[in-house]
Amino acid sequence: MSERLYLFDTTLRDGQQTQGVQFSAGDKRQIALALDALGVDYIEGGWPGANPTDSEFFAAAPQTRATMTAFGMTKRAGRSAENDDVLAAVLNAETPAVCLVGKTHEFHVTTALGISLDENLENIRASIAHVVAKGREAMLDAEHFFDGYRANPAYALSCLTAARDAGARWIVLCDTNGGTLPAEVGRVVAEVIAAGIPGDRLGIHCHDDTGNAVANSLAAVLAGARQVQGTLNGLGERCGNANLVTLIPTLLLKEPFASTLETGVSRQALAGLVRTSRMLDDILNRVPLRSAPYVGASAFAHKAGLHASAILKDPTTYEHIPPETVGNARLIPMSNQAGQSNLRAQLAQAGIEVAPKDPRLGRILEIIKEREDQGYAYDGAQASFELLARRELGLCPSFFEVKRYRVTVERRKNKYDRMISLSEAVVVVKVGEQKMMSVSDSMDEDGSDRGPVNALSKALAKDLGPYQACIDDMKLVDFKVRITQGGTEAVTRVIIDSEDGQGHRWSTVGVSPNIVDASFEALLDAINWKLVRDMGAA
Amino acid sequence: MSERLYLFDTTLRDGQQTQGVQFSAGDKRQIALALDALGVDYIEGGWPGANPTDSEFFAAAPQTRATMTAFGMTKRAGRSAENDDVLAAVLNAETPAVCLVGKTHEFHVTTALGISLDENLENIRASIAHVVAKGREAMLDAEHFFDGYRANPAYALSCLTAARDAGARWIVLCDTNGGTLPAEVGRVVAEVIAAGIPGDRLGIHCHDDTGNAVANSLAAVLAGARQVQGTLNGLGERCGNANLVTLIPTLLLKEPFASTLETGVSRQALAGLVRTSRMLDDILNRVPLRSAPYVGASAFAHKAGLHASAILKDPTTYEHIPPETVGNARLIPMSNQAGQSNLRAQLAQAGIEVAPKDPRLGRILEIIKEREDQGYAYDGAQASFELLARRELGLCPSFFEVKRYRVTVERRKNKYDRMISLSEAVVVVKVGEQKMMSVSDSMDEDGSDRGPVNALSKALAKDLGPYQACIDDMKLVDFKVRITQGGTEAVTRVIIDSEDGQGHRWSTVGVSPNIVDASFEALLDAINWKLVRDMGAA
Repeated sequence: MSERLYLFDTTLRDGQQTQGVQFSAGDKRQIALALDALGVDYIEGGWPGANPTDSEFFAAAPQTRATMTAFGMTKRAGRSAENDDVLAAVLNAETPAVCLVGKTHEFHVTTALGISLDENLENIRASIAHVVAKGREAMLDAEHFFDGYRANPAYALSCLTAARDAGARWIVLCDTNGGTLPAEVGRVVAEVIAAGIPGDRLGIHCHDDTGNAVANSLAAVLAGARQVQGTLNGLGERCGNANLVTLIPTLLLKEPFASTLETGVSRQALAGLVRTSRMLDDILNRVPLRSAPYVGASAFAHKAGLHASAILKDPTTYEHIPPETVGNARLIPMSNQAGQSNLRAQLAQAGIEVAPKDPRLGRILEIIKEREDQGYAYDGAQASFELLARRELGLCPSFFEVKRYRVTVERRKNKYDRMISLSEAVVVVKVGEQKMMSVSDSMDEDGSDRGPVNALSKALAKDLGPYQACIDDMKLVDFKVRITQGGTEAVTRVIIDSEDGQGHRWSTVGVSPNIVDASFEALLDAINWKLVRDMGAA
Repeated sequence: MSERLYLFDTTLRDGQQTQGVQFSAGDKRQIALALDALGVDYIEGGWPGANPTDSEFFAAAPQTRATMTAFGMTKRAGRSAENDDVLAAVLNAETPAVCLVGKTHEFHVTTALGISLDENLENIRASIAHVVAKGREAMLDAEHFFDGYRANPAYALSCLTAARDAGARWIVLCDTNGGTLPAEVGRVVAEVIAAGIPGDRLGIHCHDDTGNAVANSLAAVLAGARQVQGTLNGLGERCGNANLVTLIPTLLLKEPFASTLETGVSRQALAGLVRTSRMLDDILNRVPLRSAPYVGASAFAHKAGLHASAILKDPTTYEHIPPETVGNARLIPMSNQAGQSNLRAQLAQAGIEVAPKDPRLGRILEIIKEREDQGYAYDGAQASFELLARRELGLCPSFFEVKRYRVTVERRKNKYDRMISLSEAVVVVKVGEQKMMSVSDSMDEDGSDRGPVNALSKALAKDLGPYQACIDDMKLVDFKVRITQGGTEAVTRVIIDSEDGQGHRWSTVGVSPNIVDASFEALLDAINWKLVRDMGAA
């Protein structure tokens, strides 16, 4: 008999409090859809009315199976819930659920709010009752609950009771400052349940200030709480929130959780967890944390010699779960024999068959290692990896040669005396004996400047003679830039995603201290890969 | 009456198993000295004989107050401890303590080692007895103990008893695969103590594969274990080991640990924790994790407007410890989450006093919101934020005007028929009535091309007439690029860090679809900020 455990994601609200994180409404939409596919129960989209991005997101919130939730705060003292404009803006977002943060720590009521303890109780009661009256699912985020309970347990509990009696579906105990340790969280949750707040109406919201956000959440669930709040990749204010990407596999795969609780996340969705985690890093243009539990690139990397050799006999010797369960993969350093069989498998996936022990496999591994030392990264640029291998295997024709290019970026006043920017690129290529010279500027359809890489990309794709038809349907759909280390110098790594008319998508990489050069290298690979695929390598 | 808790650092051994980490003997020496200054009790320096670096380190190990420990493994079956060359190499390092890893999981004994259960027991007994006979402090790392105890508790316990009876000072329970959760760790440690291994001879060694390495270590200490193993910054195989940088402040500052246990770490050493953590990142050339508990740059950053305004009234409202306790500092970043009181505090820090409720505060917040919607991010670009506010407050003189610029990036063959890249920038500025035209290329001292932004930066800084002396000592020290969303279009956000001759460092931001333009905007802000600071805003 398993009980339902509800997952509440606050990546779009508390996650947005991460220093340096600034989602656009479009980012939020994309993340919401990924969360919905993962199978979380609630998506907290933000605080309607608090900033233009959140308002824009809610104005056209995506359709989700998960319950879309708006965040806000309990009404202020001295006015009714109906007349609180901040609360009205939250309700105007018309979400099926509303989560209001309210004070439960007497010190905060008197110091931060400067109101009486009774006024605060009434703010909670009236606000929750108002949300319920509007037909919404109401939740209370009991701010600073654990600190408040330590200071004045009776008052902290009375805040929860007020919300419960006003009809809150969920009462969420927040360790707002993140300083509470797991043993205390477990004890307090048990005491709250004993005091009359049922576990199936109780949630937990933890922060990672002592590195225990995940453990605190698990302790609360063990004690009976049935809603867990967290964020993708542990984004969030200060040290971040409880990491749902870590919690979800633990709850689904580890005892006593796996056999006693049920969530909305399917085994199939779990197998896409690495992809979901990377999607967020991509949006934020962050380097994924290699050491992240379950989903990190190193999570199943076996570097110690003793470990690696035991793994070859039986993977369970040094792996706590099969990596594929979460969409991850085992990694044994390239120098190892396993490196070559990995490489063969990857080449086979690209339709390139190489015999085992072919000496060229070792050479390809060496080139990859050298290039990765220079700053290249092939795990996000499969097409460049294929081209590199093909070149070494003699399976990559030289379709054309770039003789030279020149890009000019200019900023000056136009005839209306306004500052404008414009870029212009000239590319000279040789196809067989024929020389082609092409030029393009950086204007898009609206007449806006899209920069030097845009101009260069258009000039390069303008005239490739006999190959032109093949590349005409190509377009650059994404462009990522990282400043990274190549040897001892900082270099720029550019990864370009291209797409063609049939919806194929491929990624290429370029590295140089010069960002335009790095981009150009990635563009060239993108075109060459398309030519190999469409014209054949013969 | 407090009990002694011993800290055992394995950064130099298990930490070296981190993917991408390769310490030199000199690095190890530097880290050992920092660990000693911090006040850990044991420093595990590596495995003498296993690789040249470890042997070199032990050959000239630094003098430390902490007990230097060599790692190895129990003798192999079919030979005596005296005749095991691997064990001999470990003892030859002449360290006062020796820690040997031994199997305690029957599956590993029979599958990975392929020996009988009794042979393994004898290997443990004889090896520990041999180390003790040599006058060293002996420890057993009980590998896979928690998995082994789950599979066959009697056998796993018999391995511990064998080590205890042979004279091991410490028996360390290792969650080698990192899959055990805190509740189970606590229960098993209590059972081991009840079975006759005293807590003051019991250690804990956890890995972070479920994100619980810290919580597991705390659970073991609560249950009575009195040695904790971990690494600086949580380095280690796969997802890493228990992070001592997180554990130490928790053990020293949080109950029930603070008042019942004593460690070798002083309050003064604790106040240097941020520095110790950064030192390791410096050696590894890693970007410090902003969200790291206690020591991360964001650990005391208050981005939410409600939090920031309460912090101004009383820092304990949103801080679980005073940041200076661990050598960290409070940070109130600017962002569209922030309210007016946050803004005033920020401006005050920059020496700009504005009265509460000044209507210009609201306007500045609005401009920030608008710009952040366009892709700007001010929490990583304090200097650009200050300039924006100053402009709105009428506190930013117009030192100079950029009339136009032009950058050319060229790639072509040189006279030796090799492809080379070169960029060239022309900038025209007007200072008062004087017009200055400057040009620069992108070559660094070695004659390598550093790209168009480098050329532009040099041209811009070449001649600013009367202000030239002020900017002559400026240099660009870091350059970050992100593709982000500005409205509905992708734009490039560039953040530039600049430094002057006195070691001041400041960050500025620029946004444009054109990467060169975005960089130029950030460069202009960098120069203007320096001029405001040095020339005054009057």
